[in-house]
Amino acid sequence: MRAVIPYKKENAKSRLSPILSRIEREQFVELMLRDVVFSLREAGVNNIDILATSEYRSLTDLNVNIVIDPNDLNESINQYLEKMDQPVLIIMADLPLARSEQVKNIISSSEDVVIVPGKGGGTNVLFIKNPSRFHVQYYGMSFCNHCAIAKDMQQSLRIYDSFLLSTDIDEPHDIVEILLHGHGFSLEYAQEKFELESGRARVKLTSIQ
Amino acid sequence: MRAVIPYKKENAKSRLSPILSRIEREQFVELMLRDVVFSLREAGVNNIDILATSEYRSLTDLNVNIVIDPNDLNESINQYLEKMDQPVLIIMADLPLARSEQVKNIISSSEDVVIVPGKGGGTNVLFIKNPSRFHVQYYGMSFCNHCAIAKDMQQSLRIYDSFLLSTDIDEPHDIVEILLHGHGFSLEYAQEKFELESGRARVKLTSIQ
Repeated sequence: MRAVIPYKKENAKSRLSPILSRIEREQFVELMLRDVVFSLREAGVNNIDILATSEYRSLTDLNVNIVIDPNDLNESINQYLEKMDQPVLIIMADLPLARSEQVKNIISSSEDVVIVPGKGGGTNVLFIKNPSRFHVQYYGMSFCNHCAIAKDMQQSLRIYDSFLLSTDIDEPHDIVEILLHGHGFSLEYAQEKFELESGRARVKLTSIQ
Repeated sequence: MRAVIPYKKENAKSRLSPILSRIEREQFVELMLRDVVFSLREAGVNNIDILATSEYRSLTDLNVNIVIDPNDLNESINQYLEKMDQPVLIIMADLPLARSEQVKNIISSSEDVVIVPGKGGGTNVLFIKNPSRFHVQYYGMSFCNHCAIAKDMQQSLRIYDSFLLSTDIDEPHDIVEILLHGHGFSLEYAQEKFELESGRARVKLTSIQ
């Protein structure tokens, strides 16, 4: 099997701009990517492709295969899948809470397709045993799209229930989850910049001055 | 073992007031409670206590034990736990995505304490094998509180990773998750009132006129 991580660094995570500058966001996405790669390796996944929009020299030490495709996410993943003759795990780069335990559970599933829903109808992880016969349709209600695609193709489907993997880091309040449940580089980075403020209601994020 | 569900109906879920009237919110919390009770029963949990702030006649048909305690959540649960000589599952009433599979997994854990974190540092489910020796501390960073309490008491701890159980229904966008991943009465209610609007970004909720 192989894992593929779609990755774009330029002006990444614009919804975090109220709390992180462009340079900081570009640093941060790379650290999140590094945590995802770490958890994949820890789960025994050694064939890792990063599907990048352009060449990123800073990733050289990661020792992964960089596939450059400037196309749209759906187009580039579908082109990637077409050529694949082995199971593929598509995992997003903004899932720094991913741990090896969840990755291991997903890739050892007996079903043909495993979908890990994200908040708000997204698809955060997709494991496809017969990738050349599958196609992805991200954006919008992609969770429903991918369930329907698997069904249309008569592939058996598992919906994998994980809070850690449902938590993609998009908005400032998502950083709270890194501080509470994170690890690795992204936790270290978040701890340098933010702290939690706890009242009676939900925990809030404040910047460390 | 017993399950206990803290429940308050009066002016419940005020953060949903932009989209549901007070009467609707009071109907809705009861339907969510009914879905939680259904999933508990389906998981084989038959001893169910509802820890209510006052008497609710509409719950009579649920065939559960109603414990009335007008006190604060922490105070009432701690008084409840003190008297318990069997394992207790504390599950919140606003978790309509709870399914029997997750409940079964939690109550069959070998650890002394199982904590299911909610978004933003909350504790959505707490399974305590030795309840008379435990105490709860909800609100704010309760997930951290409960981890620390278990550790202080030298109880073995499992953090249970579940998107469905991490999703407590507090804000309008949480209703999206009911429409996507829900079941039972709360799904039916949400479908009567709302529909999903899907663009390129995250799914949005719109009211059915």
